[in-house]
Order: sequence, then structure tokens, then C-alpha cells
Amino acid sequence: MSADKYNYPSKLLADAVEAIGSLPGVGQRSALRLALHLLRQPKDNVHHFTDAISALADDARYCRECMMISDGDVCSICSDQRRDHRLICVVESVRDVMSIEATGQFHGVYHVLGGIISPIAGIGPSDLTIKQLLERLERLKGQDVEVLLALSGDVEGETTSFYLYRQIAPTGVRVSTLARGIGFGDDLEYTDSLTLGRAIAGRQPFKV
Amino acid sequence: MSADKYNYPSKLLADAVEAIGSLPGVGQRSALRLALHLLRQPKDNVHHFTDAISALADDARYCRECMMISDGDVCSICSDQRRDHRLICVVESVRDVMSIEATGQFHGVYHVLGGIISPIAGIGPSDLTIKQLLERLERLKGQDVEVLLALSGDVEGETTSFYLYRQIAPTGVRVSTLARGIGFGDDLEYTDSLTLGRAIAGRQPFKV
Repeated sequence: MSADKYNYPSKLLADAVEAIGSLPGVGQRSALRLALHLLRQPKDNVHHFTDAISALADDARYCRECMMISDGDVCSICSDQRRDHRLICVVESVRDVMSIEATGQFHGVYHVLGGIISPIAGIGPSDLTIKQLLERLERLKGQDVEVLLALSGDVEGETTSFYLYRQIAPTGVRVSTLARGIGFGDDLEYTDSLTLGRAIAGRQPFKV
Repeated sequence: MSADKYNYPSKLLADAVEAIGSLPGVGQRSALRLALHLLRQPKDNVHHFTDAISALADDARYCRECMMISDGDVCSICSDQRRDHRLICVVESVRDVMSIEATGQFHGVYHVLGGIISPIAGIGPSDLTIKQLLERLERLKGQDVEVLLALSGDVEGETTSFYLYRQIAPTGVRVSTLARGIGFGDDLEYTDSLTLGRAIAGRQPFKV
């Protein structure tokens, strides 16, 4: 099958395939398969599909506290008074918020950076919500605040953590980071040597 | 990450993820990734995306001759007078039309069945455009018409071909099928024995 859109028997089909194929990770063949799937659905289902996506683009906002995607001015987590508002977990994206929420182990609030410092991808500190984080900490001045940096363990995550530490530490706010080590269920044989080396250096008293 | 929609921090996001995740082959994680991708795009891009899909659902029609998706009453292939309208290639879907058109080897017209007979999937002859095909052949009565059955080589394709042959043969229309054999570039070692056996039984004079 040619990927050339001019081979499509219908411009409507070609346009829909082009639109769907613009999504990351969706090739021309998959896009055609999905377009033909949608074409076989009742029109109401397709409109439900497009309406949900339009509504997300049109109406979603960012929480003015934590910069997470939110239906209102302040997200459901930031407006929950049972949570500890002086423990702020800094994450890259809303996906990380969902991962951490799924553990049920965190009862603080979040700050969503909206990305990670990556010179290769052309993302610098000013592209992230670091300014908003520092302003937020300024508003909490005098309170016993802890910032937990929960970024990925790769080079970009480490770089961003280090940058944030350098920005936050002078304000007197405590900065912590996720524990590093061997994951539960990990096979030592397949653990990379950097992780293994750090796990040895950071060994902890055995608890029963 | 939990797949539970109630863990989503935003109902708008949850709804969009649910809509995208309803597509075949798109899991919850991919749907979230795609929703967040769309959220990062300019609104105009997202509306272009949803408009293209809505337009397909609302405006696409089926060619009254060949039942292929079409922007008008008659598709561009059926309205092309340079093509041989007495050579009708029967295919399962528009995807097969595109594959055959890409070869540049076919100058007849098509008939799109809209599926294939599959008792397991609950698809019978009446769910396909077989009635329309027979009516079309009736309109061509007295002319020297050939129907080329270009269906898949699997059991369902063979069953459908046999069913169509039984319906069409009594009308006096010639029925042909795609040549079967070893594909160009195929490795004999990895060719299934049924294909190989048929290729031997159907051996042809060597041509230079």
C-alpha cells in the first residue's frame, strides 16, 4: 500500500488519515485502519469521540497552584485540605502524578514541571514551571516546607533535580529525592552497574 | 499507573482518554499519552484533527456502483471512462483497493464487499454487498463481463470466494481469481506446505 495520500479514493478519508497519522507513534497504515474503524461506527459515537477531544483542548486549564491539568482554577488535590500542603512533590508530568497517586503512599501535594531540562530537545529551565514553583515556595516562607524531587533517574532527570536543588536550597526549604536502589522483584543479573553500585554505596541496615 | 478513570485529576482528561482508548489497539497508557500530546498542541491543530474525523463520519458516502467509500455518488474509479467497466475486481475493503491500485497493474473497476464471510465473527453473506454485486452484474447482462475474486488466501477468503463463485457462475459471467504461488522474494524454507504444495501442482512453463 502506498503512503501517498493522492492514492486515497476519497479526500475525506485522506484528510482523516492524515489527521490521525499526525499523532505520535501512529503510522499511515494504523491511521487508515483507525479511520475505517471510525467510519464503521454510528455517527453519534464518532461525535462523542471528537467532542471529548475538543472539550479537552478548549476547556482544560492548569491548576494555579501546582500547574497540573485541571477542570477548575485549583485542582482536586490542591483543594483537598486533608493533604499536607507543606510537602510538595515535584514531577515531570501529570502521568507521574497518577503513578504516585496509585501507590497510595503520598499525602502531600504536587508541582508539575511540564517537562524536564533537556538541551538536546531544546528544553531549558524557562520552558518549565520552575518560576511558579519558586513563587509558590516564597508564599510558604516561614513554614516548614519540604520539596520532594520525584524525577526520572536518567541524565535529564538528574540534571533537572540538580538545577532545582541549586535554586531551592538557598531559600532554606528542605529538598529530598526518591530513594534509589534495586527495585522490588528486580533481578541483580539484569540490574545496570550504576544502579547496583549506588545500591551498594547506599546500603541500609537489614530490618526484619 | 492505574487504569481506573477515577484516578484522573481531570474529568476532561479522563473523558478524552476514554474516547481515544476506545479505538482498537489503543491501550489506556497510549490513550493518555495521545491525549496529553493533543493537549500540548495549539487549539487550531486539535480542531483540525477533530474536524477531519467528523467530516469523514458525516460526509463520506459509498459509491453506488462499487460500494467503496467515496466523496460523491460515484467514486473516482467508477467515473473514470478510461477503465474497463466489464472487469470487476471483488475485494474485502477499500484498503485492498489501495493495495491493488498501488501495483498499477489493474485497469478494471472494483466491488467492495465491506467484509468477508466469517461464521466466527458472525458475518454472513447478507452483511456484505453481495446483493449489490449481483444486481450490478444483472445490469451488465449480455456484455462480456469478468469478475476477479481478489480475496485473502485464508479460510474465510476461500469460503467467501467459493460462495461468490456459486452465486455468479450460473449467470454466465466469467469468474477468475488471483494467481496463487510462491511470492517474489519468498524463501522456500519458510513457505507453508499448503502454498508450496499448490505451487507445485500449479507449476507453469518456464519463461525467459
